[in-house]
Amino acid sequence: MLTGLQVAVIGGDARQLEVIKKLSELDARIILIGFDQLGSSFPGTFKEDFDDFDPKNLDAIILPVSGASEDGKIQSIFTSKDLYLNENFISKTMPNSVIYSGIGTNFLVQIADKTKRKLINLLDRDDVAIYNSIPTVEGVLLLTIQNTDFTIHGSNVIILGLGRCGLSLARVFHAIGAKVKVGVRKTEYMARITEMGIEPFHLDQLKQEVSNVDICINTIPHQIITSEVIAQMPHHTTIIDIASKPGGTDFKFAERRGINALLAPGLPGIVAPKTAGKILANVLTQLLSKQLQTKNTQEKRDWNK
Amino acid sequence: MLTGLQVAVIGGDARQLEVIKKLSELDARIILIGFDQLGSSFPGTFKEDFDDFDPKNLDAIILPVSGASEDGKIQSIFTSKDLYLNENFISKTMPNSVIYSGIGTNFLVQIADKTKRKLINLLDRDDVAIYNSIPTVEGVLLLTIQNTDFTIHGSNVIILGLGRCGLSLARVFHAIGAKVKVGVRKTEYMARITEMGIEPFHLDQLKQEVSNVDICINTIPHQIITSEVIAQMPHHTTIIDIASKPGGTDFKFAERRGINALLAPGLPGIVAPKTAGKILANVLTQLLSKQLQTKNTQEKRDWNK
Repeated sequence: MLTGLQVAVIGGDARQLEVIKKLSELDARIILIGFDQLGSSFPGTFKEDFDDFDPKNLDAIILPVSGASEDGKIQSIFTSKDLYLNENFISKTMPNSVIYSGIGTNFLVQIADKTKRKLINLLDRDDVAIYNSIPTVEGVLLLTIQNTDFTIHGSNVIILGLGRCGLSLARVFHAIGAKVKVGVRKTEYMARITEMGIEPFHLDQLKQEVSNVDICINTIPHQIITSEVIAQMPHHTTIIDIASKPGGTDFKFAERRGINALLAPGLPGIVAPKTAGKILANVLTQLLSKQLQTKNTQEKRDWNK
Repeated sequence: MLTGLQVAVIGGDARQLEVIKKLSELDARIILIGFDQLGSSFPGTFKEDFDDFDPKNLDAIILPVSGASEDGKIQSIFTSKDLYLNENFISKTMPNSVIYSGIGTNFLVQIADKTKRKLINLLDRDDVAIYNSIPTVEGVLLLTIQNTDFTIHGSNVIILGLGRCGLSLARVFHAIGAKVKVGVRKTEYMARITEMGIEPFHLDQLKQEVSNVDICINTIPHQIITSEVIAQMPHHTTIIDIASKPGGTDFKFAERRGINALLAPGLPGIVAPKTAGKILANVLTQLLSKQLQTKNTQEKRDWNK
């Protein structure tokens, strides 16, 4: 349970509803800022305005996956008002309060530093990234089926990178019946791919490997699918790049060559907002429980002084 | 090779292009009827009009997957003219000529009977149905991902029937990470599902089994998802019915209960026309090769008389 914890959820999209639902079930006191157009209501939640609300008892601030932009703006689909986070607001919160965000933007890193508050970027966590790879894979399946006139089954699929998403992609595309090859550099990745019954190749060989590729999926956030690589691909190849913006593909060259290349980061929130929200809700619950434990221990200690 | 065989391809969609391409590669003489708007050209093909063409040397007539309707009408996306097949045309073809269609409609059965020509319904063949289950599964994946806000992975998926599509669906949804149960009646199907590491149940238990289903996929062409079954489903359930029209679901009741139910037969031609066309082209090539062999043997025999 999270009884005794005061948490502000500021802005967000459908994913945040799963977070609010879970925190409500666990009896946290939840302040909703930027939710004036939210239809459903949850026990223990209180809609507040940024300007009127006094954050002095806040233990935690939960921001959307996108965090806050360079000027502090927070996205919310549940309000038509603009939401801006600022130093003054953060500095008034409890001294041990924590800012939870999906991405830790520059603005957030700076404001956390200035106000001496802890900032936790959920998407940086390995567990969140691995759980998120599940909806990501299904998003890539969707894009692949929509963008080709042939089946994934029997197709030559190249996956670049064996990180948290690469491994999930390799497993599922292999299971569906594609002829999968995975391009990596590390010898231990070569070993893992081989153990999975899939064919590995070294990324230095990428140019040679793409000559008969039907679907090329990139997870590496560096320029890897260069014009030289694209020049070797058949014209019917579809490139799906899920690396964070700007991706790892020379999109301009792909377009000039008439090769279909899609930049598709952030798939979980698009194809499965409910699942993506539950992933965040689960990890937030664990983190807030620990925070509450520490808080209670601290209060006990202070009491005994 | 199919050298010496005269084949008329009458109407169709993108799938028929794969058939034409393959027959052209194998040196058949190909008469295209209902293709006046076809842009690409293939060696050995001749565009003809229904009324002007004399079919006296035709060894085979290839119709689209949909065959011909009750009045003989043939669908074609490559012409704006109406195409009607009639008894007179068929009766003028070679005596041993064969009519190949996807579906054997009443009209075709009757016309083949009257003209004493052989009619082969490709979709009735087990091999074609099994190959077609591959694009069908990918179509169901597409519909599932599009129609839910949660992932297939971790969802409770019920598949009804373990026929040629049911088996493929069970394998892929299980591999992606869904919690799959398959409803069947035959004990050997129960055994096969268990062997696959999946949970079987008897269809008599369907009402009890659907109480926590997220996605229900039907392959059985009888009323099986009745109003009584739907009444036990959670409101968020998505039903995807791929049985041939009118499907096996009480769609009216599902709509009244606010449950999303989709009738989706014919997925291969929609999600992967190229693959679906290749499946038809491969089996047609085999059948036409055998036909040519028989024809040549017959001609030799006649010569020796």
